[in-house]
Amino acid sequence: MNKEYKDIKVIGFDADDTLWVNETYFRDAELEFAKLLARYETANKIDQELFKMEMENLPLYGYGVKGFVLSMVEMALELSNNEVSNSTINAILNIGKDMLNKPVELLEGVEVALKTLSSDYRLILVTKGDLLDQERKLDKSGLTGYFHHIEVLSDKQEANYSKLLNHLDIKASEFLMIGNSLKSDILPLVNLNAKAIHIPFHTTWLHEQVNDDETKNKAYKTVHSLLDVIQVLN
Amino acid sequence: MNKEYKDIKVIGFDADDTLWVNETYFRDAELEFAKLLARYETANKIDQELFKMEMENLPLYGYGVKGFVLSMVEMALELSNNEVSNSTINAILNIGKDMLNKPVELLEGVEVALKTLSSDYRLILVTKGDLLDQERKLDKSGLTGYFHHIEVLSDKQEANYSKLLNHLDIKASEFLMIGNSLKSDILPLVNLNAKAIHIPFHTTWLHEQVNDDETKNKAYKTVHSLLDVIQVLN
Repeated sequence: MNKEYKDIKVIGFDADDTLWVNETYFRDAELEFAKLLARYETANKIDQELFKMEMENLPLYGYGVKGFVLSMVEMALELSNNEVSNSTINAILNIGKDMLNKPVELLEGVEVALKTLSSDYRLILVTKGDLLDQERKLDKSGLTGYFHHIEVLSDKQEANYSKLLNHLDIKASEFLMIGNSLKSDILPLVNLNAKAIHIPFHTTWLHEQVNDDETKNKAYKTVHSLLDVIQVLN
Repeated sequence: MNKEYKDIKVIGFDADDTLWVNETYFRDAELEFAKLLARYETANKIDQELFKMEMENLPLYGYGVKGFVLSMVEMALELSNNEVSNSTINAILNIGKDMLNKPVELLEGVEVALKTLSSDYRLILVTKGDLLDQERKLDKSGLTGYFHHIEVLSDKQEANYSKLLNHLDIKASEFLMIGNSLKSDILPLVNLNAKAIHIPFHTTWLHEQVNDDETKNKAYKTVHSLLDVIQVLN
C-alpha cells in the first residue's frame, strides 16, 4: 500500500462529471436557450448575461437544475424587455425538465473502480447539486450499492468540508476526496490537510475554473480516470 | 427518566413548522398567486389546479420553494392559455425570492427546549426541503449550535428514515423524531419502531394530511409545544 494514503478510511466522490456526464447537458441547455432568444441578442452575449444572472441568484437559489431554470426564465424576461412569448417561457421550463430526465452516462472505468475500492474503504457521494436530482441519478446509475450514503453540501468550500469531517467523526488525514473540480473537490481538501485526487473532465463550468497560481505547489494528484486511483492507492 | 424513552440517543427535529413558521408563507404565496391570475379563474380553482400541478411535478422537482415557483410559472401559462403577461411571470419569480428571503420566526419555547435537550441527547435537523434554504434558515434562527448536523432527505418515507438510521449507525429504538406532520415526521417512524412525538401546527399542507384511520392505535405522543417534550422525556 502507498504510504501516503495508509490512513485513509473514507473516500468521498464528487458525482457530476466525476462518475457521470453532467456539464455537457448544461452546455447543451445554454445553446438551446441562446437559440430561443436569438432574435434579441447574440449567442455570446446571452451566454455571458445568463452566467451573470446565475451568479447573482446563486446565494438565493444555490446549485442545480431548478435554480438554473429560474435564472433562464428571469434572463428571458430581461433580455427581451418583457417581450418574450409564453411559448418561449414554456420551452425554457421544458429544457429543465429534459435535463432532470436525462439518462445517466457513466464515465470510463467508474463501476470497476468503485467495486474494487468499496472492499477496502467506506465510500460516500459528496455533491452540491440538488439532493433529489442526485439520488435519482445515483439510482439510474446502478451504483447505489457501493456507497454508504450521500452527503449533499450547499457549497463545497473549506467550511462545508470541515463540517462534513466532524459529521463523519474522522480526521482530515483519514479522508480522500476524488473529483473533477479543482475549486470544489480538490483545493478545499488540500487546505484542510485531507487527501485529494483530481480527475479532469473535458468541460469545466466558468464558475469552477481556477488559475494556475491557486494550484501551484498544492499537494494533490491528478490522474486520467477513476481506474488510475486504484494504482495510486496500492 | 421516562422508561419508554430510556434508550434514546439521537433526537431528530423537523424544521419547517416545528421549529419555525413556514407553511403560513406558502399559504400567503398561494393567495398572491391567485390574485395575479384572478382575471382567468376563481381563487378556489387556481388553488386546486396549482396543487395538482405541484403533485404532478413533485417526482421531478421534489420539495421546496424553487419547485413551487416553477410550478406556479407553468400553471400561469396553462391557466391563461398562454396569454399571461411577462410582468405577471416576473411577479411570480419575485414571490419565490421573497419566500427565500423571509425572516425566521421561531415557534413557542423552541430555544429553551433545544438548550435543555442538547445537554442529554445528540440533536439533528431532519428536513426534506432544499438544503441551502434550510441551512440559511438555521443560520438566521441562531439555533445552529444545538445541532450536530442537518440531514436533508429527498422524501420522508419509511425507506428514507431507514437509510438515515443506517447512516447514523443507531437502532430504531434509539431514535426519537419530533415534528408537525403526521405523514412525514410521525407515522414512518412508528412503523419502524422508533419513537415519535407530534407537535401540531395550525396549518397543514394538503399533501401532508392523513385521515383518522391512519393514526388509530399508533404508538406516538402528541404535545402542544416543544417545551412539553422535556416533561415527556423526564
